[in-house]
Amino acid sequence: MSKPTTPKQRKPKKPLVKPRGRPPRNERDFAAIRSAEDNALRQRILAAAADVFAERGFASASIDEVARQLGATKGLVYHRYRSKGELLADLCAEGLEALNAQLEAIADRPMPAISRLTDAATSHASDVVNRIGLHRTLAEAFSGRAAALLPASEQQAIAAFAAQRKGYEAIFTRLIVEATQQHDLPGGRDTAMITRIFISTLDAPLRWPTDMLDQLAEKSQLIARQLSYFAMRGAGASDTTLTQEFSR
Amino acid sequence: MSKPTTPKQRKPKKPLVKPRGRPPRNERDFAAIRSAEDNALRQRILAAAADVFAERGFASASIDEVARQLGATKGLVYHRYRSKGELLADLCAEGLEALNAQLEAIADRPMPAISRLTDAATSHASDVVNRIGLHRTLAEAFSGRAAALLPASEQQAIAAFAAQRKGYEAIFTRLIVEATQQHDLPGGRDTAMITRIFISTLDAPLRWPTDMLDQLAEKSQLIARQLSYFAMRGAGASDTTLTQEFSR
Repeated sequence: MSKPTTPKQRKPKKPLVKPRGRPPRNERDFAAIRSAEDNALRQRILAAAADVFAERGFASASIDEVARQLGATKGLVYHRYRSKGELLADLCAEGLEALNAQLEAIADRPMPAISRLTDAATSHASDVVNRIGLHRTLAEAFSGRAAALLPASEQQAIAAFAAQRKGYEAIFTRLIVEATQQHDLPGGRDTAMITRIFISTLDAPLRWPTDMLDQLAEKSQLIARQLSYFAMRGAGASDTTLTQEFSR
Repeated sequence: MSKPTTPKQRKPKKPLVKPRGRPPRNERDFAAIRSAEDNALRQRILAAAADVFAERGFASASIDEVARQLGATKGLVYHRYRSKGELLADLCAEGLEALNAQLEAIADRPMPAISRLTDAATSHASDVVNRIGLHRTLAEAFSGRAAALLPASEQQAIAAFAAQRKGYEAIFTRLIVEATQQHDLPGGRDTAMITRIFISTLDAPLRWPTDMLDQLAEKSQLIARQLSYFAMRGAGASDTTLTQEFSR
């Protein structure tokens, strides 16, 4: 149950409040430290929740297990999140915000669309391999299964995140359309379907067994490139384009 | 909840025991008819269970819901299956047997490996699109999540099916290796990883929303070909090979 799934999540458990070497110099410093600690704690709770939800499924998971995974009390988690649904919603918020920020930074670079698409694909695949628990939980949340178990207000929150995820995927569609217009991908095809298959290929590790991903943990950057290469090739990039893009 | 997901599963509910026009002529006929009816009932229970397990998740689903989906009593289902776990095991048995039979028939054809691989890919993708509930349930069963909820004997049954599924995937690896030896796919690559990504691409619809699949139901054969084309191209098939294989 508590087996970690990615190197990131494999850190040894630390005490939840770090002893500080020196006292803060003034109130502003103190607030900044508090806020940084708060955020660090939030990140640790969310990472533990992603692991537990992904491993057990949202329906079967409990806040108790999230606390155990963290090495903390149930009270500490409940102090921040009144329910499993709130925890799921914050997980979606944090996960999507990070993904969107990465993708938008790449999509705005002054480069040909094919290069931005390649980088976006590798970046997405890398996030999937390194934060598999988060991506599995997002997939479950957006499948509608998890939402069916939640009260109406939380269902609405999850629906809003599902819409945000569609916006994220639309950036891939835009890059594929641009690369086609720039003649770096073949034209005359069903772009919506190509985008769907393209992203599903990058998401392939979602369906791989956790023990396989553990074995492959050291190779995560290589796997991200293999996924991205397969997806770019599948979408129609020529051998010349692939050689160029994957030797940058 | 009871929304059907594929055209196959959209049939109007029929009475569970069909009135027979004429009485059977002798004991042997009678046994044959009983056995055919038994099998038809088994198939209908399994199709309903696949839908319900896929939609609600195995943990949240109940035999009650399977019966409701069927338009039958809970007793009728319990008469055949003592538990949700038994139902899941029989679903795996039936699903894998059908998949294996299809794939082995294709793998044994006297054709070049690249053609058998193309046909195997299209056949698998078609099965995924047409029996999405079954494939989602198999994926959940083999993820280890569903098994964690079952007693030891049923866990063993599911583990045996997971091994059988690996055998199924090994046939794809064999075809990819053969096609590479016959110079129809580029060599010098990580075949195990290519196979994993190849199958995950064909399995892409597992992650697509059910309402999207409903909209696409009429195009299921086209989608199967698009998935197979993307996967063959991603695995390295040349434009010439693709034109040849997809115009047969």
